[in-house]
Amino acid sequence: MLKWNIPLTVTGKCNGETWVVTEYTIVKGGNMLWKLEAMEFPLSYHISVIGTSGLIAYGGFFQICRPKKGEKVFVSAAAGSVANLVGQYAKLFGCYVVGCAGTKEKGDLLKGKLKFDDAFNYKEETDLISTLRRYFPNGIDIYFDNVGGDMLEAVVANMNTYGRVAVYGAISDYTNLGKRATLNMIDVIYKRIIIKGFLSTDFSLNEIKDFMSTTTNYVCVGKLCVLENISYGIEIIPYAFIGLFQWRNVGKKIVQIAEE
Amino acid sequence: MLKWNIPLTVTGKCNGETWVVTEYTIVKGGNMLWKLEAMEFPLSYHISVIGTSGLIAYGGFFQICRPKKGEKVFVSAAAGSVANLVGQYAKLFGCYVVGCAGTKEKGDLLKGKLKFDDAFNYKEETDLISTLRRYFPNGIDIYFDNVGGDMLEAVVANMNTYGRVAVYGAISDYTNLGKRATLNMIDVIYKRIIIKGFLSTDFSLNEIKDFMSTTTNYVCVGKLCVLENISYGIEIIPYAFIGLFQWRNVGKKIVQIAEE
Repeated sequence: MLKWNIPLTVTGKCNGETWVVTEYTIVKGGNMLWKLEAMEFPLSYHISVIGTSGLIAYGGFFQICRPKKGEKVFVSAAAGSVANLVGQYAKLFGCYVVGCAGTKEKGDLLKGKLKFDDAFNYKEETDLISTLRRYFPNGIDIYFDNVGGDMLEAVVANMNTYGRVAVYGAISDYTNLGKRATLNMIDVIYKRIIIKGFLSTDFSLNEIKDFMSTTTNYVCVGKLCVLENISYGIEIIPYAFIGLFQWRNVGKKIVQIAEE
Repeated sequence: MLKWNIPLTVTGKCNGETWVVTEYTIVKGGNMLWKLEAMEFPLSYHISVIGTSGLIAYGGFFQICRPKKGEKVFVSAAAGSVANLVGQYAKLFGCYVVGCAGTKEKGDLLKGKLKFDDAFNYKEETDLISTLRRYFPNGIDIYFDNVGGDMLEAVVANMNTYGRVAVYGAISDYTNLGKRATLNMIDVIYKRIIIKGFLSTDFSLNEIKDFMSTTTNYVCVGKLCVLENISYGIEIIPYAFIGLFQWRNVGKKIVQIAEE
């Protein structure tokens, strides 16, 4: 039996529901726990670029979307922890990539540091269908969806035949600020669109190995930019968590509790 | 150059748009036309059970839905030209099949002649989510969707993990009587649901050969019940066409213009 002590209990409130960060967790010994091989990376990388975020981006893009070189890829919430990596993988693979985000600064980051082909601030757009038509005059082949709602509807309207939508989040549903996607099923039929939900736990050991070797290599040679947004101290957790739903972050949001 | 003469022009009106059945059609010679091998079947079978309807049912069920024996299959518009065959294929394959239709008579036909495990009249139900939970206490694995709208929403709410939705029609969108499906994308993600549109032209020659040999065999040995609804005379075409959107038919709607 292993036991960690966390020195403080933090109680937060989120959408009226109280949630608690526990002082300690009791886990059974066995294959649930193993010692992390840090591989000379910062520990944070193991929960961002070579952790769950990276796996969702890599597995989702390559296994769920099955891209071909030159295809047109759209990424929403593109400065977020997963989507920024999807865009970078897609560029490295040879796709045309446009991302959207909620501020001009995030758009500049996507086009500059992350080398997206283009980016736009969706908050400055009133007609998403026309906006996407402007950025994708030849249609969208792949959409990596963390948003749902209006954006998903607009993508389906701009999608090419045999388009693929990989869905790993629906933040407009979580927050209730937006509205659920009302899909045009006639488009789905005639364009033979595939919409597929997935989780990080869906990938096989071989797929995970492939992800790890490709990604660690990209990081080591500087081809993949690692975006992390680290706050410090257990007290910050509620603020950090709520920030995810207020689009406050760029890259992976991490709360560091103790020194490495 | 080949030329057929049809003895009459029929003009119909559908949703305010005038459409015309032409007196003759000019088609180029070449590989667009070939002589039909009737194989001792009625000619009508070549546009129903061993024609497009059968191919959509067979290819859609086996290629798009990838069923496993024992899986739970739901079919809407289940007395229709395609869906009645999906249900029959699914039963012959070893699945549990429930269909819905718009009259008690259609439901009786599904349970009786077509050997569905169960059937219900959706017009008698007020809460489709609860209705489906009643017929599928262990959830739905496969949905063959010709309807869209409320029914698709209710299916997603009742779907099992790794559920598949094959979409080949959205009659509630065509008619504007219903409303478009507003999907719960959180369900789509956590249950890893696949929603896939397809057309009869999507299947390979090998898949078509497989469909033909299996289906002609089933028909010859009487395992597959052929439902056709034949009207006579070119003048009936507008009425027959509009009837498709008024759920007037059972099985494949065919207008026969001349004697075989």
